Amino acid sequence: MKRNKKERQKLLQETISNTPFITDEELAEKFNVSIQTIRLDRLELSIPELRERIKHVAEKKLEDEVKSLPLEEVIGDIIDLQLDQTAISMLEIKREHVFSRNQIARGHHLFAQANSLAVALINDELALTTKANIHFTRQVKENERVIAKAKMIKNDTESRRTWVEVNSYVGSEMVFSGEFEMYRSNPKQR
Amino acid sequence: MKRNKKERQKLLQETISNTPFITDEELAEKFNVSIQTIRLDRLELSIPELRERIKHVAEKKLEDEVKSLPLEEVIGDIIDLQLDQTAISMLEIKREHVFSRNQIARGHHLFAQANSLAVALINDELALTTKANIHFTRQVKENERVIAKAKMIKNDTESRRTWVEVNSYVGSEMVFSGEFEMYRSNPKQR
Repeated sequence: MKRNKKERQKLLQETISNTPFITDEELAEKFNVSIQTIRLDRLELSIPELRERIKHVAEKKLEDEVKSLPLEEVIGDIIDLQLDQTAISMLEIKREHVFSRNQIARGHHLFAQANSLAVALINDELALTTKANIHFTRQVKENERVIAKAKMIKNDTESRRTWVEVNSYVGSEMVFSGEFEMYRSNPKQR
Repeated sequence: MKRNKKERQKLLQETISNTPFITDEELAEKFNVSIQTIRLDRLELSIPELRERIKHVAEKKLEDEVKSLPLEEVIGDIIDLQLDQTAISMLEIKREHVFSRNQIARGHHLFAQANSLAVALINDELALTTKANIHFTRQVKENERVIAKAKMIKNDTESRRTWVEVNSYVGSEMVFSGEFEMYRSNPKQR
């Protein structure tokens, strides 16, 4: 359905705000207009291009620092982190992440991004994964950019278990969702 | 409990037959005897040492050939394969597989071994993971050897889904278990 310009620009602004790593191509498809129209919309709304948006996010100092593992052991780039609350990371799917035969991203890389983000989220020196229940909801192809969003959903100080939900997206499409049960060395302090 | 020699040797033979990659150290601990005793037992029973047992298995031609992906894309070494039935692989946990902080193997490597074995098991050109339900049941440390055993447990031609169970062991201890739901391009031919 074609929308008028005002409607479209309002939705465009919301969409980019919710999914800042969406490409102009994806936006054009979503709103059923040309890429050129999207570019003009962004210009009018003063929304920078994707590359600039990513740079901006990457340069922002993280609110919290990763505690449970060295930052370089996180798979993907952490772009937001609030310990024991939420975390976001980005993984660019390159040739080494895909099956040679069909260029589809291998499941264990999406799992590694999500699992290491779940570990990084934990405000503790030690965090180990005990269980995971995961769904691969859409194939991811080479050159796509996967944004993983982790959220702490439950914490049980007695059993020292924390549950973390991770949903991963390419543009606005969910490609992976998982629930991780984590063991932590110290019960969360409240 | 100490057993007499005859009992011990019978159990030893069974144990090595069930878990061929068990070390002499693990056997000594299991039977509560010295490593030297285990070595003498093996000598008397003509059971080769671990290194020879591994070599023997690795040199054995696989009964079937992997179809769903190139062999080098399987994580770990496949040591047995019967397409659409069972498969076994071995992964040596090295420095690059562990958290630098505590030398515990990172979950995504155990997941990658199990998941790629589940893919390799499928007698089809295309096999993609759709869901997985996994448990990490015991920490794995650097230099340990993980044996993953996959088994096809269910196949539904209509939905083109196949379910594969993978249990991974260090010695006789289970370290990982998972159930994988796989999508395949062609329904299994029976």
